[in-house]
Amino acid sequence: MSLAERVLDGEIRAAARLMRDIDDRFKSAVDELKILYPHTGKAYIIGITGPPGAGKSTLVDQVVAAYRKKDLLVGVVAIDPTSPFSGGAILGDRIRMNRHADDPGVFIRSLATRGALGGLSRSTMDVLNVMDAMGLDVIVVETVGVGQDEVDIVSTAHTTVVVMVPGLGDDIQAIKAGILEIGDVFVVNKADRDGAERTERELTAMLEMKHPEPGDWMPHVIKTEAAKGLGIDQLVDEFEAHHSYLKESGALQRLIQERNAKIFADTLREELFESVFSGIKESGKYQQILDGMRDRSTDPYSAVEEVMAARSFS
Amino acid sequence: MSLAERVLDGEIRAAARLMRDIDDRFKSAVDELKILYPHTGKAYIIGITGPPGAGKSTLVDQVVAAYRKKDLLVGVVAIDPTSPFSGGAILGDRIRMNRHADDPGVFIRSLATRGALGGLSRSTMDVLNVMDAMGLDVIVVETVGVGQDEVDIVSTAHTTVVVMVPGLGDDIQAIKAGILEIGDVFVVNKADRDGAERTERELTAMLEMKHPEPGDWMPHVIKTEAAKGLGIDQLVDEFEAHHSYLKESGALQRLIQERNAKIFADTLREELFESVFSGIKESGKYQQILDGMRDRSTDPYSAVEEVMAARSFS
Repeated sequence: MSLAERVLDGEIRAAARLMRDIDDRFKSAVDELKILYPHTGKAYIIGITGPPGAGKSTLVDQVVAAYRKKDLLVGVVAIDPTSPFSGGAILGDRIRMNRHADDPGVFIRSLATRGALGGLSRSTMDVLNVMDAMGLDVIVVETVGVGQDEVDIVSTAHTTVVVMVPGLGDDIQAIKAGILEIGDVFVVNKADRDGAERTERELTAMLEMKHPEPGDWMPHVIKTEAAKGLGIDQLVDEFEAHHSYLKESGALQRLIQERNAKIFADTLREELFESVFSGIKESGKYQQILDGMRDRSTDPYSAVEEVMAARSFS
Repeated sequence: MSLAERVLDGEIRAAARLMRDIDDRFKSAVDELKILYPHTGKAYIIGITGPPGAGKSTLVDQVVAAYRKKDLLVGVVAIDPTSPFSGGAILGDRIRMNRHADDPGVFIRSLATRGALGGLSRSTMDVLNVMDAMGLDVIVVETVGVGQDEVDIVSTAHTTVVVMVPGLGDDIQAIKAGILEIGDVFVVNKADRDGAERTERELTAMLEMKHPEPGDWMPHVIKTEAAKGLGIDQLVDEFEAHHSYLKESGALQRLIQERNAKIFADTLREELFESVFSGIKESGKYQQILDGMRDRSTDPYSAVEEVMAARSFS
């Protein structure tokens, strides 16, 4: 049996193995992903982002527990910090979410930054497809890091959750419109802290200023104390409400198509580059270009034009 | 006269215009960059990175002032936060470094994150080439953000400076080896704060554990209080020492070549993708792929293979 078939049979070990192959960019992994593809598109994907210290991991842990109580199979994709300066702790699969570690109904996968530009996005999408094909009902994508790449990835989820904490004070002004645009659900976590009401009020006021069209989803602000499990049921209800909205409005199909278009574009970009770059390396053309740039008889821009002109792209 | 010729004549306005054209990805900008290329490779490029709140902007301001006292022409490229959650303030050209705003010997340019992956890297490299060709002696690249992309960009500078602050405490353990690897000069800023000695000692101890080969550069830790201008002269002396080392060891030429190779690769990647992607859009092939993914008769991976196979890349 192929890895893909074993994944479709629900074999956890095969899924983990395939995800490692994806990480290592094995050619065979692509063939497995092709087999899995017709079985994707069923999982509900929740993306969670927010500033360091907002308590995202604790919140994810509680959301996982809530879905497990509903007897749903849950996946978690944790995108680890991309930066050596990130505020978040650096957690691997092993120490993350200990209490779900022995639950076969929870599948957890950490993804670290890939060296190649776009690599993280591509790996995340591929891993989501594996989890989806495995038959997981709900997949939570959480970023520990705060780079634009990670926020972009999270915002391709079906429901994007922005977690805030009280006490950001004036900084809320600095949290640009971008965040209001990507969030489908807003959480004020650590809601027992001073200023929780104010943060909630300000967020709500900013969201109301967006004037959604009739029939559009109107994001709400949910207060939680994830560490005590408070507000989690209400939050999950809100997720379900958004999921229903997506299904009924047809937006879910559009999101699924957008994700596929993104996988296609990311993969095409890298395959094209790798193919051409390895070609000019093998032919000695690349060394010629490097030599030319060194003695200044060529420049990187002209060299690209030359390589492009030598290929037929019509 | 072409924009490039006006830039070579030292016309600031032409340089600013060309940088905007680069931002907007005008085809004409590439032609101008080609003309400028033979005039690049002279500027000394300093990259500055560090966690939010380390006082990087103040430090850059002081370093600029110190080089201006030496009558050198200075450029600053500020890479603005990539993330809506970044700790740093969001500053544009206008409000950044006010005191140098009227000094014609200082050229300041902010770069925000570009949508396209790799776009920020490419724009930064291009802007550095314009500043270099303009005849600026020293260019400081500073990241406000903390994403891996920005750290990568800064680490392509001739001298990479890592700015730390006291009081990170145990977090210094979390500052992974990566940071020690990229830094040529380490700064403990806000050195009047408690724990400055300890941070300096720990950094020094970690650097000494690297056991450089004889003839290798040994990074030092410099204490500064940028807000009071303390330690800046010593820091600039250290920059000059590193610059001399790079020139004498031949490492400078290697760094310049690496930068050109990176410009070549980044540009090639995007040009290839844009060329092929616009081709399949125009031919209707892309719509066919989207339709196929929707009705699940194809998948993104097979679609990429199909597109790759239809082109000749040999």
